[in-house]
Amino acid sequence: MTIENLSASKSFGGWHKQYSHQSKTLNCPMRFAIYLPPQVSNGEKVPVLYWLSGLTCTDENFMQKSGALRMAAELGMAIVAPDTSPRGDDVANDEGYDLGQGAGFYVNATQAPWNRHYHMYDYVVNELPQIIEAAFPVSDKRAISGHSMGGHGALTIAMLNPERYRSMSAFSPICNPVNAPWGKKAFTAYLGKDKATWHNHDASNLMRRATTFIPAKVDQGGSDDFLKEQLKPEALEAAANINNYPLELSIHEGYDHSYYFISSFIEEHLRFHAKHLNK
Amino acid sequence: MTIENLSASKSFGGWHKQYSHQSKTLNCPMRFAIYLPPQVSNGEKVPVLYWLSGLTCTDENFMQKSGALRMAAELGMAIVAPDTSPRGDDVANDEGYDLGQGAGFYVNATQAPWNRHYHMYDYVVNELPQIIEAAFPVSDKRAISGHSMGGHGALTIAMLNPERYRSMSAFSPICNPVNAPWGKKAFTAYLGKDKATWHNHDASNLMRRATTFIPAKVDQGGSDDFLKEQLKPEALEAAANINNYPLELSIHEGYDHSYYFISSFIEEHLRFHAKHLNK
Repeated sequence: MTIENLSASKSFGGWHKQYSHQSKTLNCPMRFAIYLPPQVSNGEKVPVLYWLSGLTCTDENFMQKSGALRMAAELGMAIVAPDTSPRGDDVANDEGYDLGQGAGFYVNATQAPWNRHYHMYDYVVNELPQIIEAAFPVSDKRAISGHSMGGHGALTIAMLNPERYRSMSAFSPICNPVNAPWGKKAFTAYLGKDKATWHNHDASNLMRRATTFIPAKVDQGGSDDFLKEQLKPEALEAAANINNYPLELSIHEGYDHSYYFISSFIEEHLRFHAKHLNK
Repeated sequence: MTIENLSASKSFGGWHKQYSHQSKTLNCPMRFAIYLPPQVSNGEKVPVLYWLSGLTCTDENFMQKSGALRMAAELGMAIVAPDTSPRGDDVANDEGYDLGQGAGFYVNATQAPWNRHYHMYDYVVNELPQIIEAAFPVSDKRAISGHSMGGHGALTIAMLNPERYRSMSAFSPICNPVNAPWGKKAFTAYLGKDKATWHNHDASNLMRRATTFIPAKVDQGGSDDFLKEQLKPEALEAAANINNYPLELSIHEGYDHSYYFISSFIEEHLRFHAKHLNK
């Protein structure tokens, strides 16, 4: 396993770095970003927050716009941000912004032409943490968070692998993709028309039938243009209520779907994860 | 005077907004961004920090990447970020990233073809504050800061108008443009070959001969790729020492020219300006 360093910028006493590597899972070169807080220079192994971005994003959006590095430095937490899909000229794509490159939806595609490269679920759950934990001074304490499509990814991946994550959170997640246009389009393409396969990747369904709980925090803007049609936090809240799942859900009046919202509340998310990672 | 609202996002309890307007000074439509902190909703008039961005930037880079809105909300300070040049199909341009659109250098061009639109000095000093102070709940207490080309702009504009600004600061400014490739290229194009006209826009020269002082803070990354050839903080430091100018200059080992550096120290800059704005 070889990873190639692409950039390195000092930030808040630690380092933001980008790497590329040949992914076995995705069958193409992939890029990720990592923030290593100043504590690692003392030889300390720090816990890792995985961040999954939304539609059209890359490894860069969160690191540049969230303001999270300040708190990660204070709390002694690494952050890892993968790209949102496989990439490249020989990777299947679509003209829409909500399918194909930039829109991997954190599932393993079973349908052609997507099944050759689109295995973002396996990449995030297995290959990426193996690389991170082999190459960097981090512990195996993991948390996971994300935004929109990446919020869907964070919640579903954590609930399908509760032994691998101490806590999960999301901003503006697609909470019930089997009933939302983005989810229906992506799941039809990647997983096929049999909706039985979709439910395993629906956060509301997983929260309703979960038997192992991990602490969960979700924040949603009340003036988000996608709230009613695509995001549906009421479905997640209903599932949590039925199953007594430990979900902290907040709707923030006036906030939209942008990083101006995420940056306003990212400190609370990092403190939430730090509390559970340091137990 | 009409300004048109283009976007509005709630952030840290306040609002980030973008506007366009027809600039009389620049003879073209211009865009700016403003952050209004939560204190304005109490009817409070807040002071304003003007931020001037660097080469290739627009009104967006600082607002999205600096992490400054958090402190602006806490301190009760508005931030205004103009674009870095006039824009449009009928505005003169150059193939280089360091001349023409995105590279106005905060001077009033006297040379054709630039003199038709490139009057960023007058725009920042006069037209923009008039608009801001007429349209928004802000006081006439002003501070100014910027990065790289915008650091040059902030320092020179403040020293040429010390009665208009309470404090000035810069990240990685072009401190001595008359002796740097970026400055020589831009000043030759905009101001002509007579170097006597250049010195009025050279921060080191202005600091050496200033008779009215305003508090100044400059931060520079020690691993900035542009440090030796383009930025030359040693020239500014020498000028401050000769003239006893109140300059706080710090070189930060390992930091580069990016927003990963700016975001690491922006809190200190906002606190510096707040201290002087609230006197």
